[in-house]
Amino acid sequence: MKSLYPTYDVIVVGAGHAGSEAAGAAAEIGAKTLLITMNLDAIAKMSCNPAIGGIAKGQLVREIDALGGLTGIVADKSAVQFRMLNTSKGPAMWSPRCQSDRALYSKTMREELEKKDNLYFRQDNVVDVLTTNDGKRVTGVKTSTGQSFEAQSVILTTGTFGNGLIHIGETNFGGGRSGERASVGISGALEDLGFEVGRLKTGTPPRIDGRSINLDKLEIQYGDEDPAPFSFLTDSLPFQEEQLTCWMGDTNEEVHDVLRSGFDRSPMFNGTIESTGPRYCPSIEDKINRFSEKDGHQLFLEPEGWNTYEMYLNGFSTSLPEDVQYKALRTIPGFEEAVMLRPGYAIEYDYFPPYQIRRSMETKITEGLFFAGQINGTTGYEEAACQGLMAGINAARKVQGDEEFILKRSEAYIGVLIDDLITKGTEEPYRMFTSRAEHRILLRQDNADLRLTELGHKIGLASEERFERYKTKNEAINKVHDLIADYTVYPEKMDPMLEEQGTSTLSQPVKAKTLIPRPQLSIYNLLEADDELNQKVEAITTDEDVLDQVEIQIKYAGYIEKEFEMVEEMRKQEDTLIPDSLNYNKINSLSAEGKEKMERIKPETLGQASRISGVSPSDISVLMVYLNN
Amino acid sequence: MKSLYPTYDVIVVGAGHAGSEAAGAAAEIGAKTLLITMNLDAIAKMSCNPAIGGIAKGQLVREIDALGGLTGIVADKSAVQFRMLNTSKGPAMWSPRCQSDRALYSKTMREELEKKDNLYFRQDNVVDVLTTNDGKRVTGVKTSTGQSFEAQSVILTTGTFGNGLIHIGETNFGGGRSGERASVGISGALEDLGFEVGRLKTGTPPRIDGRSINLDKLEIQYGDEDPAPFSFLTDSLPFQEEQLTCWMGDTNEEVHDVLRSGFDRSPMFNGTIESTGPRYCPSIEDKINRFSEKDGHQLFLEPEGWNTYEMYLNGFSTSLPEDVQYKALRTIPGFEEAVMLRPGYAIEYDYFPPYQIRRSMETKITEGLFFAGQINGTTGYEEAACQGLMAGINAARKVQGDEEFILKRSEAYIGVLIDDLITKGTEEPYRMFTSRAEHRILLRQDNADLRLTELGHKIGLASEERFERYKTKNEAINKVHDLIADYTVYPEKMDPMLEEQGTSTLSQPVKAKTLIPRPQLSIYNLLEADDELNQKVEAITTDEDVLDQVEIQIKYAGYIEKEFEMVEEMRKQEDTLIPDSLNYNKINSLSAEGKEKMERIKPETLGQASRISGVSPSDISVLMVYLNN
Repeated sequence: MKSLYPTYDVIVVGAGHAGSEAAGAAAEIGAKTLLITMNLDAIAKMSCNPAIGGIAKGQLVREIDALGGLTGIVADKSAVQFRMLNTSKGPAMWSPRCQSDRALYSKTMREELEKKDNLYFRQDNVVDVLTTNDGKRVTGVKTSTGQSFEAQSVILTTGTFGNGLIHIGETNFGGGRSGERASVGISGALEDLGFEVGRLKTGTPPRIDGRSINLDKLEIQYGDEDPAPFSFLTDSLPFQEEQLTCWMGDTNEEVHDVLRSGFDRSPMFNGTIESTGPRYCPSIEDKINRFSEKDGHQLFLEPEGWNTYEMYLNGFSTSLPEDVQYKALRTIPGFEEAVMLRPGYAIEYDYFPPYQIRRSMETKITEGLFFAGQINGTTGYEEAACQGLMAGINAARKVQGDEEFILKRSEAYIGVLIDDLITKGTEEPYRMFTSRAEHRILLRQDNADLRLTELGHKIGLASEERFERYKTKNEAINKVHDLIADYTVYPEKMDPMLEEQGTSTLSQPVKAKTLIPRPQLSIYNLLEADDELNQKVEAITTDEDVLDQVEIQIKYAGYIEKEFEMVEEMRKQEDTLIPDSLNYNKINSLSAEGKEKMERIKPETLGQASRISGVSPSDISVLMVYLNN
Repeated sequence: MKSLYPTYDVIVVGAGHAGSEAAGAAAEIGAKTLLITMNLDAIAKMSCNPAIGGIAKGQLVREIDALGGLTGIVADKSAVQFRMLNTSKGPAMWSPRCQSDRALYSKTMREELEKKDNLYFRQDNVVDVLTTNDGKRVTGVKTSTGQSFEAQSVILTTGTFGNGLIHIGETNFGGGRSGERASVGISGALEDLGFEVGRLKTGTPPRIDGRSINLDKLEIQYGDEDPAPFSFLTDSLPFQEEQLTCWMGDTNEEVHDVLRSGFDRSPMFNGTIESTGPRYCPSIEDKINRFSEKDGHQLFLEPEGWNTYEMYLNGFSTSLPEDVQYKALRTIPGFEEAVMLRPGYAIEYDYFPPYQIRRSMETKITEGLFFAGQINGTTGYEEAACQGLMAGINAARKVQGDEEFILKRSEAYIGVLIDDLITKGTEEPYRMFTSRAEHRILLRQDNADLRLTELGHKIGLASEERFERYKTKNEAINKVHDLIADYTVYPEKMDPMLEEQGTSTLSQPVKAKTLIPRPQLSIYNLLEADDELNQKVEAITTDEDVLDQVEIQIKYAGYIEKEFEMVEEMRKQEDTLIPDSLNYNKINSLSAEGKEKMERIKPETLGQASRISGVSPSDISVLMVYLNN
């Protein structure tokens, strides 16, 4: 049946964290975009913890923001608390995180999306993916209301809704999130096209009635005194009132004993759930099972928003029978009278092992079809959002005839994430860590704009305002950097300050730049000690972000330069493209395992090939020679 | 299995407009109340039009508010526009109405409910009603997560979720609202208990992308310049900005022709839907079918909230196939480029013919089990809300050992509604009208507090603040009334004003009271003309509501007194209770039809019996004699 509706450039299926970014980016770039969601009132719903960012995830949000995505802006507008994590470590480890008002996050994302002129909404349930007869080219989607919608690019972001099955103890039922039904049909359509489908699992803790908790027995956790927003566009945070606090508690052996008493009825342990859950966000039963030597696990009680007493018990994710959840919960100090608003549950859902997509997020089997988010085997709002952003960009660019937009591992955590997925695949929900990035000293949260905003602007995503801000900041950084490099400081002015900071005094005048690497000193110490320098800097800028950036660049110059050298060394491999059509079986000198793995994964660059497990350095040498012919 | 959880006094199943009021009232009165909803993020969701109040419905909201319910407060806090309807008619017809921000309404109701100390929440899906073995006494409910919850009173407010089936043309699928799944299980449980179940239908129009409408072709509709809130507690409305506007348009013959072209595929006309829809809120296909002589039907395009371009097309409810909806929509002047966010649909759902409940909303079959809202065959948020309120009150009072709280037909529209339902039953969705109330001159929106707040306070629902406000207002009314009755006005001061207002001048001094009944005059004319009188009134009050009330009481004194006399005449019948145990078949002098009807309906008073269709005046005389023995 001919579609009733105009043809779109891009259709995005699903409006979670991946789908929202995908739709926003595609529309912003100029593609006529249709966002289809089962529930227009649940856009960008935080189905798990009410928080954005955290270690490495905060960096992802800053990168999304630098490129012109929405997550950072929405997080800033809906935050109830901000904390910069890891500030005791070097700047590469600093990770911003906020607690969010869950309902406000969803509302704000919808409002941001409604600002996009090229974006249209449809509340409906997609049940089929439409393609040309050979399945090689996507043509649109079909919905449960019987409508077909045509587009040149289709992005699937099914999250946990793909054949979602919720487990609580021995009870299970179909569902996409607690209270929402699953989506059935898409997986079958994709299998028919030749896609390999797998199952993953994730889970969520019980939600708690905050009135029932004895907070005196918990440790309070305040937000930062000087909260730092996610977005490079946010000048001030719209706090309605003081930041909210979180609370920390602990399980103990007694709690664990109660939990263990339900293991025989646990879907995780009795074989009902066979799929794998997120290693770094395990259920509480997983934790006490795997780390049986630990006699306690930390829990965080997090507010769900400004005006609700519903709270989220981070660290207590569980799919044990409800009676066990309840008894164990009430054994935790401070939770003796705890009331649950919703029990914890596990959910199994379909994913498509990500060797089946390219760096652009486009599937290898069906041209114009893109996957983003949990469908690719990841976990986490931020991991989903950045994939959605990249899929949205590339789906739009494909329609517009532009080349693929790829971020390298040396340019962004986003590049690391996508390269990891498509090269190494994943058999458990993948989450980002700083340790996954070999160049993490370069991929800092503080310089995401310097790394990415120009790229985001070039592709039409980062706004003029954002680009101007970036340029102004970048110019100021260079000017201050040059000033500090060139400016001479004298013992008279510096020595009192140096003594106060507990570092050696000067024997002669030196360039200001030479003092900053000292661990005891910050750029601000120099400015306070030398009023003339301070005035010269103030003539350039009063933006602390600029000063911080200059300090980091000077303080860590050695590491940064070394890292850039390494990137340069790798550049040749990373830039050497391998044609899709290459038949590895015909290259005799390749190892048998190398042939098999590369035939399956079809690496797009020599660099990607070198990271495939089972591909040897000699295989890479062979390939390099072959490709140079 | 023994319940894991403490026993509650009252369990409310469903958190729509009935369930929210029920839970709020029961908790406020002091009952430990559990509200179970399938989705804690969709409390009091406006699943149909984004508006509260309207003709007779506005009166219901004022009554709910006067008693201490929540709908009026929530509507005031989330309104985007206010209009008082029917101001060209007498005060009995004035009906307040507002347009609402749909998401804000839901959020605000949740916040109001979270303020109730005795109220607990549970996100879950109730699948069974638990009773004693004989089914005669409710004991609790069972949920899809396998949990049982015990309570002395259970209130079912299943709305359209009871075996909900959504239709769009020839497509249909299970669902409770668009995007949400149906609830299955409760109806079967009730049938097993001996309840008669029926099916009803309702529908909703497509939601429109406001950007796609040519508003120049529509007529604008502004809010009132001096908007009047619903709640007697609201002093000022929290408008964030100017009120939003609505827009009016019309269908025409061309639109009707397109709609007719789909009638053969309409579930309404091809037999797929057999159940009856709301007569006074018909689908557009119904309207052009039933009123084929009309060449146009009015449509209202209503905003869905402050920060969204989604709009609601009131008057265009339809379950025609989507292609027909779409083509017809685009034939409407101004809608040539209209984009639908969600198509219109019809929904069939289970209801329980309301002869099965008592005046208290308790079911006759199962003690402690209460029904409220669409489950009783009504339509409308306001009709649902007031039933929820009454069920919540009586469920709590039952637990506390207090007598049933009943409102008479002469006391409130709420009394009319419940008496209509249980006496006349309904085979189509029942909505309120002013014409349903025989004493409507008494049941005005302006005096809802004077009629009901003292009653609400007595049962512990209306707060002290509300009661004090009522008392202050009532005292002021009496004082001003006495003053006006006693105060003499003179021709010197009055005549210029009387001439200006176009009414005859005075020949001698008269009591101020005698002038007010003149249709040309208001109390304000007198106050402006006589400064001494004005000062005396100002010494009592400056509250315009008081002055308006005095004016109405004096202007319509004749009608009001006559109405009170009629109420008095009926009082004996209304106050004569009929024992539940009465066996009508044993009273030989009753007509055969009278016996049969009364056996089925089991009227609770002689007044109710007299309104049963088929019960003759002689049956009532027989009963009266019998009961006096």
